[in-house]
Amino acid sequence: MAKKKMILDLDTGVDDALALAYALATPDADLIGVVSSFGNTQVETAAQNTLKLLELLGKSDVPVFVGAAHSSTTDNFETMQVSMDIHGKNAIGDVALPEPKTIPATTSAVDFLIASAHQYADDLVVVPTGPLTNLAAAFKKDPQIADLIGNITLMGGALVVPGNVTPYTEANINQDPEAADYVFKHAKHLVMVGLDVTLQTLLTKQETQKWRDLGTEKGRVFADIFDYYIDAYYNLDINKAGAALHDPLAVGVAVDPNFVTLLPLNMMVDVNDGRTIGDPSRLRDPHKNNYVAVEVDEPFYLERFMNYTLAVLS
Amino acid sequence: MAKKKMILDLDTGVDDALALAYALATPDADLIGVVSSFGNTQVETAAQNTLKLLELLGKSDVPVFVGAAHSSTTDNFETMQVSMDIHGKNAIGDVALPEPKTIPATTSAVDFLIASAHQYADDLVVVPTGPLTNLAAAFKKDPQIADLIGNITLMGGALVVPGNVTPYTEANINQDPEAADYVFKHAKHLVMVGLDVTLQTLLTKQETQKWRDLGTEKGRVFADIFDYYIDAYYNLDINKAGAALHDPLAVGVAVDPNFVTLLPLNMMVDVNDGRTIGDPSRLRDPHKNNYVAVEVDEPFYLERFMNYTLAVLS
Repeated sequence: MAKKKMILDLDTGVDDALALAYALATPDADLIGVVSSFGNTQVETAAQNTLKLLELLGKSDVPVFVGAAHSSTTDNFETMQVSMDIHGKNAIGDVALPEPKTIPATTSAVDFLIASAHQYADDLVVVPTGPLTNLAAAFKKDPQIADLIGNITLMGGALVVPGNVTPYTEANINQDPEAADYVFKHAKHLVMVGLDVTLQTLLTKQETQKWRDLGTEKGRVFADIFDYYIDAYYNLDINKAGAALHDPLAVGVAVDPNFVTLLPLNMMVDVNDGRTIGDPSRLRDPHKNNYVAVEVDEPFYLERFMNYTLAVLS
Repeated sequence: MAKKKMILDLDTGVDDALALAYALATPDADLIGVVSSFGNTQVETAAQNTLKLLELLGKSDVPVFVGAAHSSTTDNFETMQVSMDIHGKNAIGDVALPEPKTIPATTSAVDFLIASAHQYADDLVVVPTGPLTNLAAAFKKDPQIADLIGNITLMGGALVVPGNVTPYTEANINQDPEAADYVFKHAKHLVMVGLDVTLQTLLTKQETQKWRDLGTEKGRVFADIFDYYIDAYYNLDINKAGAALHDPLAVGVAVDPNFVTLLPLNMMVDVNDGRTIGDPSRLRDPHKNNYVAVEVDEPFYLERFMNYTLAVLS
C-alpha cells in the first residue's frame, strides 16, 4: 500500500495550527498541500497564517492554496465575534509571526483538490477543519472526484451532543450547511470527527509548558498560541478543565481511526438549522458512506499528540 | 444469579401488544406485572387492552396496575389524532376483543414500582414503552429506588436520527419531557432503545401471515392487530417496507443487549424541544448511567422475535 497523501483544508486558527503540526509529524502520511478556507477568520488571513506557521516549522516547501472567501449561498463573510474571542484577532492567539517569504500557489484550491483526487485517488486523505465549501465546489466542478478520494476525515458537526453555535449546529457546519450536506451525501468514505469526541479531548497548560520547556522558538510560539485559547476557554466559560483539540484530533483519526469508535451512519445536514443527523431515507441502506466518531480514547490520543508535537517543535 | 423479574409499563397500542407477547415468551425473565400509561391512548383504555390481551394469551394471573392519566406538567391528556391513525381508535388496530373477566389491581402503578424495586433490586428490569411519567413519579416518591432498579430499558427517544413528532422529539419523550429528563439523570442503569434502532427493525405481512397460519384465535387476533399497523405505516407513508417493532425491540434488548450496539453516553432531555441528547455537563464523566442503542442486528432480532411470538400464539 502506497503511503497516504494528505491535504489539509484549514481556516487557520489556533487548533488548526496544531492540526498542521500533527500532520507534519505523523509518519503515516505526506502532507502534499494546505487549502485555505474562511471560518475562524477570513480566507486571506487563514492562508497567511498557514504560510507563517509552515515557515516557522521549516516546511515552506508545502504549497498553500487559497480557497473560497464565503459560502456558495452568501456573497460575503464576516468573522464572528466569538471566533475572534476564542482564536484572537489574527486567529492565532494574537501571537505576532514574521511575514512569510513564500506566497500562495496560483492554482485554485478547487483545482488542486481535483488534480490530487485524480493523481492519488484511494491514497488521498483530505482533512477539512473548517466549512466544507471548497470540497463541495470541487465535487460540483468534477463529480468524478467524489468517488476517487479515498478518505475524507473532517472536524465538524455534533451528533450525540448539542452544537456550539446553537443547540443544533456546530460552527464549521453552520458556516455552510448546504456544502456540508452535499459532501456528506456524495463522499465515498467520510469520517465525521465532531464535538461528540473533540469536547472530550482537552489540552491544558501542563502540556503547553512541555513545548515551552523545549527552549525552541517553535515551542514558545505554539505554547503562546495555545495558551491564548486555553485562557479563552476558561474566561468564556466554555471549559475550565482545558481547551478542545478539535482539529488535530481529526488529523489523528484520519491516519489512525483506532483513537475513536466509529458509528457507520449515513448522514445529512438539515440546511434550516445546520444539524448533522442520520438521513432517514438512507438509514436501512446496508451501504454506509459516512462514519461518525462517537467515543474517543483521550489518553491514547493525547500521548500520541504530545509525542508528535514535541518532535515537530524540537 | 436469580432469574430477572420484569415489569412492563405500556400505553397499550399495537406494538405494545407485541411487547407483551414477547415478555411472556422469553425464558430470561418472569413478567411480574404490567403498569399502564397514557400515550398511544388514554390510560384506562391501555389498562383494559392489557387485561384483554393477557386473557387472550391465557395469562390473566399477571396483575395490571393503572398509572398516570397525564404528565405531571399538564392536567389532562388528549390522544393525538396521529396515534389513532396508527393504532386505531381502540389502540389495538380496531380489533374487537371480549371484555376481560379480570380487573386492574387496587395498588397504584407508582406503589407497585416502588415495592418491586425494594423486593427485587438488581434483579428487576423495568421496560417502559410510553411516557416515563410513572417511573419519574415513583423516583420522586421514593428516591431510593433509582439506585435499586437494576435495569431500565425503555422504548423512546431519538439520538442519531430525527424525531417522529418534530425533527427533534420522539412521541414517548414528547408526552412528558420533564419526566424523561428526570429518569435519564437519576436511573442507575438505563438503556435507551429509540428510533435510531426501532426504525431499522421492521415487520411485514409475510411474518404476520405465519401467525395467521397457526390457525389459532390468538394468531388471528395478533395478525389482524399488526396488519392494521402495517397498513397505517403504508397509507400514512411512514414506511412502505414494513412497520417498526418499536416496543418489542425494547423488551428484547432488556433481556439480551446483544441485539444492539450500545453507546455509553450520559443523556438529558431538552424540555423545550423534547430532544434526547448527550448531557454536556456529564460528557467527560467516566461513570455512565445511560446507554443508547445505536445499531441493531435486525435479522438476529427478527429470528428471535418470530420464534417467541409463534410459540406464544400457538
